[in-house]
Amino acid sequence: MRIDVKRCAELLAEHDNILILTHAHPDGDTLGCGFALCRALYKLGKICGVANADEIPKKYSYMFEDIAEIKFKPSYVVAVDVATDNLLGELQRQYHIDLCIDHHSTNTEYADYLLLEDAPAACQIMLEVIRELGVEIDSRLAGCLYTGLSTDTGCFKYASTTAATYRAAAELIELGADNGAINRAMFETKTKTYARLERLALDSMRFYENDRIAVITITQAMYNETGSNEQETEAIAPLTRQIEGVEIGITVKEKPDGTCKASLRTFETVNAAEIAKCFGGGGHAQAAACRLECGVEEARDRLVEKSAQMLKG
Amino acid sequence: MRIDVKRCAELLAEHDNILILTHAHPDGDTLGCGFALCRALYKLGKICGVANADEIPKKYSYMFEDIAEIKFKPSYVVAVDVATDNLLGELQRQYHIDLCIDHHSTNTEYADYLLLEDAPAACQIMLEVIRELGVEIDSRLAGCLYTGLSTDTGCFKYASTTAATYRAAAELIELGADNGAINRAMFETKTKTYARLERLALDSMRFYENDRIAVITITQAMYNETGSNEQETEAIAPLTRQIEGVEIGITVKEKPDGTCKASLRTFETVNAAEIAKCFGGGGHAQAAACRLECGVEEARDRLVEKSAQMLKG
Repeated sequence: MRIDVKRCAELLAEHDNILILTHAHPDGDTLGCGFALCRALYKLGKICGVANADEIPKKYSYMFEDIAEIKFKPSYVVAVDVATDNLLGELQRQYHIDLCIDHHSTNTEYADYLLLEDAPAACQIMLEVIRELGVEIDSRLAGCLYTGLSTDTGCFKYASTTAATYRAAAELIELGADNGAINRAMFETKTKTYARLERLALDSMRFYENDRIAVITITQAMYNETGSNEQETEAIAPLTRQIEGVEIGITVKEKPDGTCKASLRTFETVNAAEIAKCFGGGGHAQAAACRLECGVEEARDRLVEKSAQMLKG
Repeated sequence: MRIDVKRCAELLAEHDNILILTHAHPDGDTLGCGFALCRALYKLGKICGVANADEIPKKYSYMFEDIAEIKFKPSYVVAVDVATDNLLGELQRQYHIDLCIDHHSTNTEYADYLLLEDAPAACQIMLEVIRELGVEIDSRLAGCLYTGLSTDTGCFKYASTTAATYRAAAELIELGADNGAINRAMFETKTKTYARLERLALDSMRFYENDRIAVITITQAMYNETGSNEQETEAIAPLTRQIEGVEIGITVKEKPDGTCKASLRTFETVNAAEIAKCFGGGGHAQAAACRLECGVEEARDRLVEKSAQMLKG
């Protein structure tokens, strides 16, 4: 059932022993939502915690390094920034989702209650929920929410960023979010392993359809060669779309089992989610993802073929 | 004489035939200030124009493409975002500067009247001035001011960005600034020649002193191979400092005559200007430059040696 911010805050206030789930391969927005909500619920005296299917990249540790983990039996489960329940990874089978707070228009309404708003970052919605809960937003909580705003908008760069996003950022900075340090950690710091992977990724870039489609291919061999891993590939996908003239950027990543995951990036002229949908995936109009049960070369060919069709309208 | 926003607006309202000067090698902030002020003064029925010593890069043409150039004899000259009068380039000798609107704490007070405020972008101050002038801010004027905010803060990334900057951006977006298109043009568009050069530059990166020093080397052969040129290297220097653990990033660029130019990037721990000074150069604490009358390899060795000394304190 679709609910509004007020009802969402009521539901959270009514429950205790709340487990918050982020999506697998957690990013700044899902983690920002998760730990911001966790901090807010702690302030209300509740027992709660955050869980997800994968290891949290080290650069996000400032969000939770001061929080002691509590062991408890969850009686209410909330998914944040999770568009479909299979994005929960291996946690999908373990939990029934009572509440979902999300900003993906493709949300499959898998939770009993869904707060879904149109915002460039789920953290922008979470700020409203936490305001409605009436708890004081301290600098660490503000930092969690700021991280989501910043990371999901490419540091306020993407066209989806609205005046409300900038206002939310202003408010969070005034509440103590360390915007300089957060943005440096998120956008200005490459691990050596990532830097090596980025080089190989750029070397792999190929162009199609008069250079309107760019494809990066990342193989397991490239992870082995560089010491990098899939967790570090988040920043790779946007590189495809940065080349002048490219309208569709595709990043094909080989999984350990030889099948593929693909990230799609487009501009206004092409709907990325529509391409992803052809392969059973989804996402946003300009950033989407899907899985393909084949090797990287076949995956690339199939994605390029479908993308070329989209360009022809 | 130092003045406030109110007095600055009064001075502008009192005068006509106003020439606005931006600094040489104009960037988004000085141009944004210049064309925003020009548009505001037009709305007040004044004769005015913008001038600078160098050609304006094509990517900024949306700021002025709809403005007809007027020939007039200036009776009042305003410099915007210009810290010292020698940054006016060849225009320095031609004009007496009546008024300066700036945000550089190093401003040398060369103008009769100076509006100097602490802000990450001069456009943030210009927004206050234009509000005080009482003119309506249309979408094109808003776009000029937004450009300055965005470009001088690395798209709202740098630590200098304040809550007020984000609020100003929110206001300008509501007034019609096309933030998506502007940021794409400023930050997300790499020419193919630049993209090729960047790959070679990343391939050339070498590490020294337990990876605390990173060096990129760009040769004339690399320009020839990629079709790129030195004008496109602006975005290369920051790449060195982005690698985790790197404290000094050096970019050595070979000139056509076989000698070198070097760009230095550091974090708070090392003063880049001090290293540059050893080779007759200079700059800011975290970004400096110098020339070396030798080939790239010798230049690299000398810079690394001096940098290693700096690391040892």
